[in-house]
Amino acid sequence: MKRIAVLLSGSGVFDGSEIHESVLALLAIQEKGATYQCFAPDRTQLHVVNHLTGEVAEGESRNCLVEAARIARGEILPITQLHAADFDALVVPGGFGAAKNLCDFALSGSECQVSDDVMAVALAFAQAGKPCGYLCIAPMMLPRIYGEGVQGTIGNDHDTASAFNAMGGRHVECAVEQIHVDVDHKVVTTPAYMLAKSLPEAAAGIRALVSQVIKLCY
Amino acid sequence: MKRIAVLLSGSGVFDGSEIHESVLALLAIQEKGATYQCFAPDRTQLHVVNHLTGEVAEGESRNCLVEAARIARGEILPITQLHAADFDALVVPGGFGAAKNLCDFALSGSECQVSDDVMAVALAFAQAGKPCGYLCIAPMMLPRIYGEGVQGTIGNDHDTASAFNAMGGRHVECAVEQIHVDVDHKVVTTPAYMLAKSLPEAAAGIRALVSQVIKLCY
Repeated sequence: MKRIAVLLSGSGVFDGSEIHESVLALLAIQEKGATYQCFAPDRTQLHVVNHLTGEVAEGESRNCLVEAARIARGEILPITQLHAADFDALVVPGGFGAAKNLCDFALSGSECQVSDDVMAVALAFAQAGKPCGYLCIAPMMLPRIYGEGVQGTIGNDHDTASAFNAMGGRHVECAVEQIHVDVDHKVVTTPAYMLAKSLPEAAAGIRALVSQVIKLCY
Repeated sequence: MKRIAVLLSGSGVFDGSEIHESVLALLAIQEKGATYQCFAPDRTQLHVVNHLTGEVAEGESRNCLVEAARIARGEILPITQLHAADFDALVVPGGFGAAKNLCDFALSGSECQVSDDVMAVALAFAQAGKPCGYLCIAPMMLPRIYGEGVQGTIGNDHDTASAFNAMGGRHVECAVEQIHVDVDHKVVTTPAYMLAKSLPEAAAGIRALVSQVIKLCY
């Protein structure tokens, strides 16, 4: 039975992990007979966004791990306890939290840096040759983790794809129900809510991603 | 194309709507070719629970509608704008929020009262003969809404089932992947995370519930 680490960044599309993507990934993992353990950084989110208005909630502060615990129903650990040796694969859902709390792409664009704790974990999976799945905007971290030439998709948004390429990655357009597989790096990506207009659309791509990640474990 | 109103109560199993149940319900609705609109009460949650520790976060205050907007990706309306005439059916996910923010079952047990705004909406669907689906702990509101003899399930928890019966309902035991249908009242219930040990288990019951609710629209 394959064990998959799922890295979350909060709970909510505008300041944390995209909730639908996260739940659909957890569902797909268990549907495929694998197990998951959720993790998140134990530190303050970049900010809190009121999801009703879309405005930053000035003066409010929330912790990535505490909020991600909502998606994980309390069963979550700090990223410092995530050791690649304990798992067969890593899956990182999207949501702006991936671009705000796991790296700073939302602020710095193609100058983006991945947080030290996230980089350590992602590199450990990469260096162990273990497969990883990145959803939605999360692939923007790939060029920093895998270096020049890593392939990935964020769908078809021109500016975001250009930033991916400017960082040294090789962006590949991809439809919402599809995945892109970088076989050499064992990296699987899918656009999810970069393109999805409905939950079934997101679910199709996420199921395909999880299925491929598990196949690459063998 | 059937239109389903989904009534949320926050975002998180311990103080709002159970996130997995909510997302799986939205997924099932769209998979069946129906559409949804989310609603929630625009008022303060009973309390905020730190989902990492399970403790009440003293001094913190959150709004049901603002938090539920995280599950709805911002596409949500206050319950005061929910008119039964605009929809074919109502679905209410569980989570402690259903027992804390939609009614006071978590505090008052079988003496529970349903919030006025929730009662108005639920009664409007009931009186119009429109089908309704209640998940997990949400069925505890049914005896207040439908009166003596309404049938429903919360799974097989003895104390909760006894409270349901003490309120005038007729509790029916039900497995996690199954549903109970009260044909006379057009009420469908499923245990979801009252019993579920995994997302696929919860998803099976929720898919069956949504499917039955939509059938009852015809």
